[in-house]
Amino acid sequence: MKMITSIIRPYKLDEVRDALAHAGVSGITVAEVRGFGRQKGHTELYRGAEYVVDFLPKLKVEVVVPDELLDAALEEIQRAARTGNVGDGKVFVTGVEQVLRIRTGELDADAL
Amino acid sequence: MKMITSIIRPYKLDEVRDALAHAGVSGITVAEVRGFGRQKGHTELYRGAEYVVDFLPKLKVEVVVPDELLDAALEEIQRAARTGNVGDGKVFVTGVEQVLRIRTGELDADAL
Amino acid sequence: MKMITSIIRPYKLDEVRDALAHAGVSGITVAEVRGFGRQKGHTELYRGAEYVVDFLPKLKVEVVVPDELLDAALEEIQRAARTGNVGDGKVFVTGVEQVLRIRTGELDADAL
Ligand SMILES: Nc1ncnc2c1ncn2[C@@H]1O[C@H](COP(=O)(O)OP(=O)(O)OP(=O)(O)O)[C@@H](O)[C@H]1O
Ligand SMILES: Nc1ncnc2c1ncn2[C@@H]1O[C@H](COP(=O)(O)OP(=O)(O)OP(=O)(O)O)[C@@H](O)[C@H]1O
Ligand SMILES: Nc1ncnc2c1ncn2[C@@H]1O[C@H](COP(=O)(O)OP(=O)(O)OP(=O)(O)O)[C@@H](O)[C@H]1O
Ligand SMILES: [Mg+2]
Ligand SMILES: [Mg+2]
Ligand SMILES: [Mg+2]
Repeated sequence: MKMITSIIRPYKLDEVRDALAHAGVSGITVAEVRGFGRQKGHTELYRGAEYVVDFLPKLKVEVVVPDELLDAALEEIQRAARTGNVGDGKVFVTGVEQVLRIRTGELDADAL
Repeated sequence: MKMITSIIRPYKLDEVRDALAHAGVSGITVAEVRGFGRQKGHTELYRGAEYVVDFLPKLKVEVVVPDELLDAALEEIQRAARTGNVGDGKVFVTGVEQVLRIRTGELDADAL
Repeated sequence: MKMITSIIRPYKLDEVRDALAHAGVSGITVAEVRGFGRQKGHTELYRGAEYVVDFLPKLKVEVVVPDELLDAALEEIQRAARTGNVGDGKVFVTGVEQVLRIRTGELDADAL
């Protein structure tokens, strides 16, 4: 199983969620974060206006998927989150050793 | 060492903390997150009322433990976080390669 | 590639960012978290005042680096985040299997 952590533009959340659902992903966890990218002190577009970037509000979207869904999920995330402008975000993939559904005690693939 | 990431109902935090302390766990890190589970558009119980779920406030509880505490910690988390209703949450286990206590420079097991 | 997750005192963020930039790190992601450390019920210094600690506001700083930057980044984080008092924080290192820059589709080392 893999954890896919995506740092995206906040207004892209609905599109990313729909895209992940399309890839067969069931649950996601979202946190508000502050992002500091490579363009420190440069301008970046946010809600239609240009800002001199110190930090920018971003969303961190975490989703754990079975290995066979990884590639499709990554494609969907990129397609949904991309605008073509700097600041579109980044995706990190890490390994997950165990998953537990608290209600049922199901484990690993059965818990996803 | 393992990172145990639990997505739980917010009102279960105190019970989960006490349960983890009981398992011998010393430090935990908690973040407010929004959860989107499998029951999109279904109703879920939150603070005694039924909601049509778009997203639900959840807490993400992260705790890094030595390998030998993993099983006990998972058991305690499930026992403390479980109500038996949908939405009880999920636990993810990932590997941790290094730990550093900033104050002392202690590493790995000594830093936990 | 490695994910370095640092739990630090909030007022140390600017110093940690500068230190990471000094180590050649480009982007970071920051979240507000609540920390429960080992000194439950003990006093801890926060913004110059002593508190009986139940939980303390901390920042979680996440940065993904190529393997060859790991050691320098860890040294810089410790140097910048340390005060010598309890509660200075903790650093966790985990492995990252893939990285994707959403705008360009670049992968792994090229995406950092
Ligand atoms: N190496 C990194 N480690 C942790 N978080 C990162 C890293 N790089 C970027 N981020 C996070 O991702 C957010 C978006 O990054 P961003 O899209 O600006 O990446 P970039 O590499 O600068 O690409 P671009 O050139 O398209 O802007 C940042 O604000 C930050 O939160
Ligand atoms: N695959 C996943 N990846 C990331 N986060 C997830 C995943 N599945 C669930 N979550 C997070 O866990 C929270 C609780 O999930 P939930 O308990 O509803 O899981 P479930 O699989 O639907 O089980 P149940 O049938 O008991 O409701 C979700 O709101 C979401 O934040
Ligand atoms: N094992 C752990 N797992 C997850 N988070 C932790 C863990 N230990 C500490 N933390 C987080 O790091 C924060 C700072 O921890 P702290 O610096 O107090 O660690 P400590 O081991 O008690 O060291 P010190 O003796 O210097 O206080 C905690 O408030 C908590 O958010
Ligand atoms: Mg950028
Ligand atoms: Mg559910
Ligand atoms: Mg402490």
